[in-house]
Amino acid sequence: MKIGILGAGQLGRMLGLAGYPLDFDFVFLDPATEACAAPLGDHIHADYQDEAALAEFCKRVDVATYEFENVPAKTAEFVAQRIPLLPAPVALTVGQDRLSEKTLFDQLKIAVPRYMPVATREALDFAVRNLGLPAVLKTRRLGYDGKGQAVLRAPEDLDAAWARLGGQPLILEAFVPFEREVSCIAVRGAGGEIRYYPLVENVHRDGILRTATPRRADPLQAQAEDYVRRVLEHLQYVGVLAFEFFVAGGQLLANEIAPRVHNSGHWSIEGAVCSQFENHLRAIAGLPLGSTALREPCVMVNFIGDAPPLAALAAIDGVHIHHYGKTPKPQRKVGHATVTAPDEAQLAQRLAQLQLLVAQSEN
Amino acid sequence: MKIGILGAGQLGRMLGLAGYPLDFDFVFLDPATEACAAPLGDHIHADYQDEAALAEFCKRVDVATYEFENVPAKTAEFVAQRIPLLPAPVALTVGQDRLSEKTLFDQLKIAVPRYMPVATREALDFAVRNLGLPAVLKTRRLGYDGKGQAVLRAPEDLDAAWARLGGQPLILEAFVPFEREVSCIAVRGAGGEIRYYPLVENVHRDGILRTATPRRADPLQAQAEDYVRRVLEHLQYVGVLAFEFFVAGGQLLANEIAPRVHNSGHWSIEGAVCSQFENHLRAIAGLPLGSTALREPCVMVNFIGDAPPLAALAAIDGVHIHHYGKTPKPQRKVGHATVTAPDEAQLAQRLAQLQLLVAQSEN
Repeated sequence: MKIGILGAGQLGRMLGLAGYPLDFDFVFLDPATEACAAPLGDHIHADYQDEAALAEFCKRVDVATYEFENVPAKTAEFVAQRIPLLPAPVALTVGQDRLSEKTLFDQLKIAVPRYMPVATREALDFAVRNLGLPAVLKTRRLGYDGKGQAVLRAPEDLDAAWARLGGQPLILEAFVPFEREVSCIAVRGAGGEIRYYPLVENVHRDGILRTATPRRADPLQAQAEDYVRRVLEHLQYVGVLAFEFFVAGGQLLANEIAPRVHNSGHWSIEGAVCSQFENHLRAIAGLPLGSTALREPCVMVNFIGDAPPLAALAAIDGVHIHHYGKTPKPQRKVGHATVTAPDEAQLAQRLAQLQLLVAQSEN
Repeated sequence: MKIGILGAGQLGRMLGLAGYPLDFDFVFLDPATEACAAPLGDHIHADYQDEAALAEFCKRVDVATYEFENVPAKTAEFVAQRIPLLPAPVALTVGQDRLSEKTLFDQLKIAVPRYMPVATREALDFAVRNLGLPAVLKTRRLGYDGKGQAVLRAPEDLDAAWARLGGQPLILEAFVPFEREVSCIAVRGAGGEIRYYPLVENVHRDGILRTATPRRADPLQAQAEDYVRRVLEHLQYVGVLAFEFFVAGGQLLANEIAPRVHNSGHWSIEGAVCSQFENHLRAIAGLPLGSTALREPCVMVNFIGDAPPLAALAAIDGVHIHHYGKTPKPQRKVGHATVTAPDEAQLAQRLAQLQLLVAQSEN
């Protein structure tokens, strides 16, 4: 089976690596010259708006998907009119707008932090009076890794935040004094079967994910699965979806969804029986889904800006190295490592060694 | 790092899949048009004797290795004179000749079945009188998967065997009434560090490996490691080596070595902390070696001739599918599956389901 992927970043690269053993071939479409998935398939080097290139892409594949959630809606529709595109474009468009995303959560009775749309400077004042401070002002579209966000702590922060973000559709969200951040990665098959990975505890710094730790039996697992199921079934979703939550007062509050494989699921390559990448491919290819069970305690650590030296990483037992083949650059995700161990004590020891290396190399 | 691989079959393909996450790129040299590793790197499509192509290969890579043990000795020497070729060509030449292999075992005081070289029809009679029947007549070179062998059970078998195999250097080996066949996969790093995978129990049919099962604590582990170490150190070997043994009377008897990653080590992709493929790359790249510890009970099953339907395989929990991207053909290894499970009871159940599918599809 020939699989087309819109986007050719590290998620496409890891989809490709998971797909070869299933006898799948890949065609990537991505405007970037340095597209790190390109060596794993054919790369159509074109803009997402280039209809001739899109038509060529559609001609060459049996089924298509995306690894980049900011693929333009028009692009997705163009492709979906010609070949099966999974998950369906509606998931992409809902996830691309924080307001429609939150409206969906409300509609599905999923607990969500209080929010208000903000279109003008006056609307911002009004929203701040209603939600109080602190609060977070976010662009409705194209935000990721903490970009397009401003934390408002005091009234005097409003002008600067407006100067930076105003002039585009915004949303103000009540600040959630969360105890922790978790995500639930799930996959829904073509026939409606759903499998959930163990809840993952995520640590961000400067808005960028640093570590992700799957929890063997988190007390919030059942609640998270119920919320994810509502979204998956409502959207008639096929593939992997990531749902990020805040935990406040011991309860889940919806943060956002990503209609694709997700950084907080990378641990599943070694840590789960079937990885999120393989399960996404199984779903879009109409195959039975694989087990999402945790195999061993593990933690994923991102390489931000630059990666530790290969030899130092390789010297720690149980460290599984994943380079993305990208040029180092401040704040860029250039790779990750997942450390596995037979028990929690050994895991803590190995993780400490890994974290030390990562801290020394970050950029 | 750019790694050159002589041969581009399934072993090259799995080396490539293991190498991308370490930030390695690949150049394969292989005369086959349908070279299944080719999509994972650049493919120089040329004969092993084509010196212009070999020179080009050497120019484009930092270090070279092989995934095919019948690379001509002259080819290996040509490459080794220009760039680091690991393991060194001596391992290749020793392994290519059953007589020099057995002579080495004798020299290193590794127990070996009785054998005699056979160059003429008279020498065959003489060897049969000395070793008795049954015995196995084998070509000294280019035998694999049971090819180039004849079992002699009675004196009247000699003429037919000679008619089929005579005229090339042969060896007669005493038939070993073995209880089981095992292999020890080990890896030696550039600095001399050695790691051993758990002993693997192998089942062959028609001379082709069918299943390989790593044993958690086989009583022969220590003896096997000692034998493998002697070979690795004698050859100053760098990379993965496979050593196959017969077990007779509870003792190991050397059968043969393969100077490369090996079919009986494929289970290590999911079953070991660091796979044989990654460890081979780590060794030739001068990196510290990864842990060879068993993560979970598992069994590898080969797909011979054809593979079971993808959907049927995917429906069994814990089955990890590995297609080689090859056209089905009788007796051809077209893929394998490794089934993992948290305990032996579940493993047995899953394995029975898998074996049923494999039996239905074999060709």
